[in-house]
Amino acid sequence: MSKTNYHMTADEFRKAGREVVDWIADYYEWVESHPVVPSVAPGDIRASLPEHPPQSGEPFASLMTDVDKLIMPGITHWQSPNFFAYFPSNTSFPSILGEMMAAGMGVQGMVWKTSPACTELETHVLDWMVELLGLPDRFLSQGEGGGVIQDTASSAVLCALLAARERATEGQSNQQGIQDRKLVAYTSNQAHSSVQKAARIAGIGDESIRLIGVNADFSMDVDALRDAIQTDRENGLRPFFISATVGTTSSMAMDSLTEIASVLDESIWLHVDAAMAGSATVCPEHRSIHNGLEQADSYCFNPHKWLFTNFDCNCFYVADRSALLGALAILPEYLRTAEHDAGAIDYRDWQIPLGRRFRALKLWFVLRHYGAEGLQAHIRQHLELAAMFEQYVMESDHFELIIPRSLNTVCFAHREGNDWTEAILEQVNRSGKMYVSHTKLNDRYTIRMVVGQRTTEERHVRGAWELLEEAAMRLKEKNDA
Amino acid sequence: MSKTNYHMTADEFRKAGREVVDWIADYYEWVESHPVVPSVAPGDIRASLPEHPPQSGEPFASLMTDVDKLIMPGITHWQSPNFFAYFPSNTSFPSILGEMMAAGMGVQGMVWKTSPACTELETHVLDWMVELLGLPDRFLSQGEGGGVIQDTASSAVLCALLAARERATEGQSNQQGIQDRKLVAYTSNQAHSSVQKAARIAGIGDESIRLIGVNADFSMDVDALRDAIQTDRENGLRPFFISATVGTTSSMAMDSLTEIASVLDESIWLHVDAAMAGSATVCPEHRSIHNGLEQADSYCFNPHKWLFTNFDCNCFYVADRSALLGALAILPEYLRTAEHDAGAIDYRDWQIPLGRRFRALKLWFVLRHYGAEGLQAHIRQHLELAAMFEQYVMESDHFELIIPRSLNTVCFAHREGNDWTEAILEQVNRSGKMYVSHTKLNDRYTIRMVVGQRTTEERHVRGAWELLEEAAMRLKEKNDA
Repeated sequence: MSKTNYHMTADEFRKAGREVVDWIADYYEWVESHPVVPSVAPGDIRASLPEHPPQSGEPFASLMTDVDKLIMPGITHWQSPNFFAYFPSNTSFPSILGEMMAAGMGVQGMVWKTSPACTELETHVLDWMVELLGLPDRFLSQGEGGGVIQDTASSAVLCALLAARERATEGQSNQQGIQDRKLVAYTSNQAHSSVQKAARIAGIGDESIRLIGVNADFSMDVDALRDAIQTDRENGLRPFFISATVGTTSSMAMDSLTEIASVLDESIWLHVDAAMAGSATVCPEHRSIHNGLEQADSYCFNPHKWLFTNFDCNCFYVADRSALLGALAILPEYLRTAEHDAGAIDYRDWQIPLGRRFRALKLWFVLRHYGAEGLQAHIRQHLELAAMFEQYVMESDHFELIIPRSLNTVCFAHREGNDWTEAILEQVNRSGKMYVSHTKLNDRYTIRMVVGQRTTEERHVRGAWELLEEAAMRLKEKNDA
Repeated sequence: MSKTNYHMTADEFRKAGREVVDWIADYYEWVESHPVVPSVAPGDIRASLPEHPPQSGEPFASLMTDVDKLIMPGITHWQSPNFFAYFPSNTSFPSILGEMMAAGMGVQGMVWKTSPACTELETHVLDWMVELLGLPDRFLSQGEGGGVIQDTASSAVLCALLAARERATEGQSNQQGIQDRKLVAYTSNQAHSSVQKAARIAGIGDESIRLIGVNADFSMDVDALRDAIQTDRENGLRPFFISATVGTTSSMAMDSLTEIASVLDESIWLHVDAAMAGSATVCPEHRSIHNGLEQADSYCFNPHKWLFTNFDCNCFYVADRSALLGALAILPEYLRTAEHDAGAIDYRDWQIPLGRRFRALKLWFVLRHYGAEGLQAHIRQHLELAAMFEQYVMESDHFELIIPRSLNTVCFAHREGNDWTEAILEQVNRSGKMYVSHTKLNDRYTIRMVVGQRTTEERHVRGAWELLEEAAMRLKEKNDA
């Protein structure tokens, strides 16, 4: 008789599940002593995989073996304590447990009815977040606003821009297409590329997004913004959207929301992207970066960057949820429910995709495991370590700060210029002992040191600095020789 | 001394992880005997949660207790064997294990460099999928095409439409905005709402998307499509995009790709949405639904619906990846890598968001655990059960088919009309013993019975039928009385 049931049994899952849990725990012990960035070339990993998919099933043990043998050699270890590149995408054990449980339940939260707790826990923890970060009350769900979990800040800014587009055109863009509505959007030239990408997607286009110049600290030059808006209006164009950044990707620069708010009127939607920096405001002493936020129409930050919550988890808020729904709601018969008609939240109307995972669960686990004081303590530790690193740079003969440290991000370069800086970055990354990434600030090739991993301690930051100094020393000796 | 380390230790995680693994295994034993849809009203779950976030951290045991006490009463059990609603979002133990491991690694696959194995395994399993489903070679990554994992079919059709928009306008929409380019898109009036939503997002608008009428089997009327295209061209408009559906959400109707291909020319991009039905083609006997697919520019299906892989996992393919990249690529300095410049795949350029999880891992686990033959066996089981259910309907005094069964979806209604059908649906759902959802077909209120859960066996389908017959009997008696 041929086999008819290929499913893994519950007992097999209990056994395999324990192995995976141990694998994860072991991973965090292992990762510190292994190269952060793998030494593989494009194509190496694929070349080690079988050309054809398996005809018959394989035992789980083979999979575990192959993860170690075939996959791990090609992993860049984002969870290494020596990872200081990009912005972090940190996580924690409670978050992993929440993700496991959500995967186990396998529910869909597209509408209230398809899992009421999935929707309501999300609304609830997003309201909690307003309190934890001291955000304006207008973002609470009790009033006209509310929060939703998006996958990323990219999707959040797209949703914000679409809401703004429909508000500005009274729903006519959705109905008739954009046509020649002369809409213009504004952001700084230091804003994340996702703002420009959103404008492209939404049919606004590069030529109708003004990348406003910046001040010496890389924050938006609000005088230039005001001038640009005025010029556009004089030319018969319609300013409708500003995306401000609280903590730019390159250098963690802070746009002044208070100043930007001074150029607003009701025709312009202000979105605030605090993807990385927002988490710092769990500490009251850092809340000034949000000054002026009560004037914003929408806001987002990423617990998946710096609040110990697995990617993906972007908290996105709007002050007027009807504007967001006006842009994104669409109701086919097969999704109509009595609860929808009665006003329950259907989060599919708050996002681009229809389906959605139970992402609130991991965030709830994190908030309850750490409590406000645990989150504050660890954010403060990261900031102390970043301050320590900044001090090293300031006292160094080789390096100099490009700008003063902002939160957990230190931007610095070799005093001898771009070639030296780039050579040093490549050397320390190649060592495998740390990983930093770069940007360009005023044409200077700049190393960005970002402290935000859960497992990063003082010795890792000190170790990274010693590697950088050694590399600089060797380069100098080579050059002097 | 105040506490400075709030992190869960590795040992605590090992213990908690085992508890969560056991919780998941227990869940699948528990779920069968519990109501599929919870009996809560909007607001009930929130009312049971503390108003304020915790100031101090709590032990993990409290979380586990609260999941059972506060969350589970509000869960709609998508993984119940008695879930026959919507389209399923099925999963399996190997997939859950893959999701766990991906959460544990916590890597970002936005560019090749940020985790080479995350990118390369994805490319590899998507090529495997081409072979497993017998898809056209043009979707393989070795040539001009290639595959990528999107979150949902909604995002896939948006990406396809944007690629088509930029191809049709030679990149000018991204640059200058859509303006009045007279672009027109086509899909059937049975297509998923995400097609219309994508057209709105992309600045095309409702008035420039033609919802083409359908044949008696709810497949697109291709003569009407041809006429619409011709009329639009005569009026100076520019047809640029068709979204065909292989397996509509309402009734699993199959558009004829061969016929649709006959109206194509190079100015029109054909996207094929086989979100649900695509998985059936792991069985060679069902591949005829893809006839004509070799003419398509893009294609997607969802392993997270019917191939035992956790949401989110949509496999999206393009025949010409340069068109997709032309629409979505954007390269800021902080994301530039040598490998990008040398042509390595950076999947951020294939999607809306920047960040991305290691979703290929769970799909790889599923393919290796089941092998082709395991997947085929279980798809065939579901189809046999759906055929059995169809037979019940055909032999029933109360119910009748609205259309012949298509794959695993049976559309039927009470012979007495809409009020009776709706009353019966509400009654069986309220019983908690099963969950079905509805649609309207030719103004008939229609119950959709979809067989696709991993744990669904013959007894569940038979039990569902008995409940429906009983409900119909009671309604008749009440009416006769």
